[in-house]
Amino acid sequence: MADPRFFQRAGPFALAELAKAIGAETGPGVDPDYRVEDVSPLDTAQPGQISFLDNRKYVEAFRASRAGACVVGPDDADKAPKGMNLLILREPYVGYAKIAQMFYPSTIPSPGVHPRAWVEPTAVLGEGCRVAAGAVIGANAQLGKRCDIQANAVIGDGVTMGDDCVIGPNATVTHAVLGSKVIIYPGAQIGQDGFGFAIGSSGFVKVPQLGRVIIHDDVEIGANSTVDRGAGPDTVIGTGCRIDNLVQVAHNVQLGAGCVLVSQSGVSGSTVLGNYVQVGGQVGITGHLKIGDGAKITGKSGIMRDVPPGATYAGIPGRPAKEHWRIVAAAERLAKKGEV
Amino acid sequence: MADPRFFQRAGPFALAELAKAIGAETGPGVDPDYRVEDVSPLDTAQPGQISFLDNRKYVEAFRASRAGACVVGPDDADKAPKGMNLLILREPYVGYAKIAQMFYPSTIPSPGVHPRAWVEPTAVLGEGCRVAAGAVIGANAQLGKRCDIQANAVIGDGVTMGDDCVIGPNATVTHAVLGSKVIIYPGAQIGQDGFGFAIGSSGFVKVPQLGRVIIHDDVEIGANSTVDRGAGPDTVIGTGCRIDNLVQVAHNVQLGAGCVLVSQSGVSGSTVLGNYVQVGGQVGITGHLKIGDGAKITGKSGIMRDVPPGATYAGIPGRPAKEHWRIVAAAERLAKKGEV
Amino acid sequence: MADPRFFQRAGPFALAELAKAIGAETGPGVDPDYRVEDVSPLDTAQPGQISFLDNRKYVEAFRASRAGACVVGPDDADKAPKGMNLLILREPYVGYAKIAQMFYPSTIPSPGVHPRAWVEPTAVLGEGCRVAAGAVIGANAQLGKRCDIQANAVIGDGVTMGDDCVIGPNATVTHAVLGSKVIIYPGAQIGQDGFGFAIGSSGFVKVPQLGRVIIHDDVEIGANSTVDRGAGPDTVIGTGCRIDNLVQVAHNVQLGAGCVLVSQSGVSGSTVLGNYVQVGGQVGITGHLKIGDGAKITGKSGIMRDVPPGATYAGIPGRPAKEHWRIVAAAERLAKKGEV
Repeated sequence: MADPRFFQRAGPFALAELAKAIGAETGPGVDPDYRVEDVSPLDTAQPGQISFLDNRKYVEAFRASRAGACVVGPDDADKAPKGMNLLILREPYVGYAKIAQMFYPSTIPSPGVHPRAWVEPTAVLGEGCRVAAGAVIGANAQLGKRCDIQANAVIGDGVTMGDDCVIGPNATVTHAVLGSKVIIYPGAQIGQDGFGFAIGSSGFVKVPQLGRVIIHDDVEIGANSTVDRGAGPDTVIGTGCRIDNLVQVAHNVQLGAGCVLVSQSGVSGSTVLGNYVQVGGQVGITGHLKIGDGAKITGKSGIMRDVPPGATYAGIPGRPAKEHWRIVAAAERLAKKGEV
Repeated sequence: MADPRFFQRAGPFALAELAKAIGAETGPGVDPDYRVEDVSPLDTAQPGQISFLDNRKYVEAFRASRAGACVVGPDDADKAPKGMNLLILREPYVGYAKIAQMFYPSTIPSPGVHPRAWVEPTAVLGEGCRVAAGAVIGANAQLGKRCDIQANAVIGDGVTMGDDCVIGPNATVTHAVLGSKVIIYPGAQIGQDGFGFAIGSSGFVKVPQLGRVIIHDDVEIGANSTVDRGAGPDTVIGTGCRIDNLVQVAHNVQLGAGCVLVSQSGVSGSTVLGNYVQVGGQVGITGHLKIGDGAKITGKSGIMRDVPPGATYAGIPGRPAKEHWRIVAAAERLAKKGEV
Repeated sequence: MADPRFFQRAGPFALAELAKAIGAETGPGVDPDYRVEDVSPLDTAQPGQISFLDNRKYVEAFRASRAGACVVGPDDADKAPKGMNLLILREPYVGYAKIAQMFYPSTIPSPGVHPRAWVEPTAVLGEGCRVAAGAVIGANAQLGKRCDIQANAVIGDGVTMGDDCVIGPNATVTHAVLGSKVIIYPGAQIGQDGFGFAIGSSGFVKVPQLGRVIIHDDVEIGANSTVDRGAGPDTVIGTGCRIDNLVQVAHNVQLGAGCVLVSQSGVSGSTVLGNYVQVGGQVGITGHLKIGDGAKITGKSGIMRDVPPGATYAGIPGRPAKEHWRIVAAAERLAKKGEV
């Protein structure tokens, strides 16, 4: 059970209600009125709780589980212990996620502007917004409905966002246009100047950064990540992107829809990622490249050339993963020979 | 045109005024009174706007550009389309940067201390400073003229800074002495304890960190970067250094003048960089090293030994770049042979 | 001498008092009443100041030092210059650290809640706490004695901490249970959602993150580091861990006691580190691994498999360090041969 100091549980829900919400079929002998109190992992679940099986590694835990109900794929339903109420779904983890959202909805505790927040008079807040203590909202900012601006967050002048956005504590958003359902995690810094200067004979000269950050709907940007605004063109984060913690996105970068950038990765200026690109942890991608749709970059790689759509790249310098691992294996063999 | 929600344009300026400001010669047939309204890239520029050509890759865009005026190098002036007003300068990108600064000056919107800022009574603020909502300035801090302490920034006790410094939202500066024209980007943390502890038989013992951070004039430190104060000696950032986002500078590090540290690079304790060293993205440099003047470290390298002045180093472990690439090529050939 | 704008010195102390405090023996001819005014490095120390010798590289500096007193190991005592007052201890750096703590104690300047702080009425603060300007403490938070919540820090609802904790400026702590003597550095973000989503045919679905961050006693977490809360289980940081700046600790990670994570390293979800594991700078460790007690991972490595207790691993992919360096050496030789 989640710690009640931090999480407020909703429910209970009847099993039939959960099944309908996630679009699952009910297994044989399921009681549609079975009352579900909470979610729980297979190994700690109790009667009255719902769990899920998504990975064959956990089939034994599934067989032994005391969970009162479980979301499971059609091929695994026959392995259930006797008396378990099954919800059958092709994507059981997705189903579990939706059920967990029902039990632990991300509600705004108490809408309104905290007396210790500062909202410029020209800012416009939609219905149901919260502005927490210490948060600052600049002139002419426009927030949609139910946005949650958390403690000590800073929203710059003129920033606009759609509905249901969350800006975490100590995060900053300036020079940016956000869609709906955008979550900016604590400490993330969005919209500052990119790393732009002209190198002259008498030193560096700052180049004014005149673009913006455009963030489409349903994007998450992790804690302490940084997204610089464009230098002239905009920096663009496509719909549904998931950016982890401590990630750097430089000026003029464009991410297509559904890209995933794992922690501590970085994308240099003006590089363009297609849709559904996956970038592993601590990857670096240099500037002015094109990374094709659906490409995957394995963790710690350093990408210095364009990556074609669908390709998996690895290594420093990055290359097709198979080539990379062939080189690693060849070097291993060579070292072993050297020992003889 | 830059989004007027975020950027306030100055001007217009007569062409002669711009030429004088950047020290350019005017091309043949230029109208000194030609009125310039804005800056713009070559491909989107219109009559009344000024652009620049700095890279031969864009000569075709230059030939086709509708820009009313353009900053260009002496060798490219003859490629201009008919009727374009030219400003001729050896470093056209530098000239453009200066003109863009004229159109989009970084002014402080409204000097003064916001009613929601907190400034300790013993702090001294120079003329024209702004302290934004939620910013906190500690006891005995001393700020020069026209410093801009942005929302929720924290300036620790005793910190001093020169004129025209900008401390971004949610940034912290403690135990530090800053020159003039220093820009600390949002979320950067300057002056905290270094990673200093003695390892004893009964655990770690914290070693008080008794140094400072000294930042010389005209330095920029990027978003969410961290600069630890010295352990006894100081941590020093030389004049004109440019530090990108998410960079780590450990205690006692010294950077000479004009060093460039690209995003997510890190310099370990007590390492000394000379002047004009360039450190690529995600580079790591171990502690107690000397990196000579003008050295270049390519992205993702791991430097474990001193680097001589002027050298280019690459790889993990870092070595002269030519050697590194020779090794990479040899491993590639070996893997190909293995396939046969 | 430390800059008095930033550091308040205590003392002076009689040498006998210092010797007793660190458990050192006094050398031959020591004056127990010798009055020590400050700490200082060997090369700049003056009469009336105490230094230390911990590294044979500095024996010459020791011989030449003008320090009035010095903490030194038993084997080096005979190299002292004439008239230097010696404190003899097996772990001289530990002894020095403790003495430096006596001269520069980390006291809370002025306990109490600043008028510009916001503390929810249901929060409970122990005796002697400070809550600085702009700090925000949520509902039902519980702080032990002498906790120092610095400017613009944010403590979430329900967070509990023991005694003598320090939460730095612009840091955030939510969904967390902290022991005593925990130091969270500026800008660190603790307790946010992990990177958890289910990948379905119609996009990503957020998986509620229902665990906490448990931080045991005497832990330090560096500036702008990020520690995500657990997804269901907790994220756990063991007693005495030292985490440097810009480090990522993902959801469900467990660190044993006394682990050291150097700057810009990252540990992916559900990986378990034993006790006293040392992780070098910019290391990446993938998810769901076990790293044994006392293992060492050298800087910049990428660990993709379990590491046995006591082992030293290096390289990408990480392997026993000896194997790694053998491969590096073999590739070097190959490249040299290629030149011939």
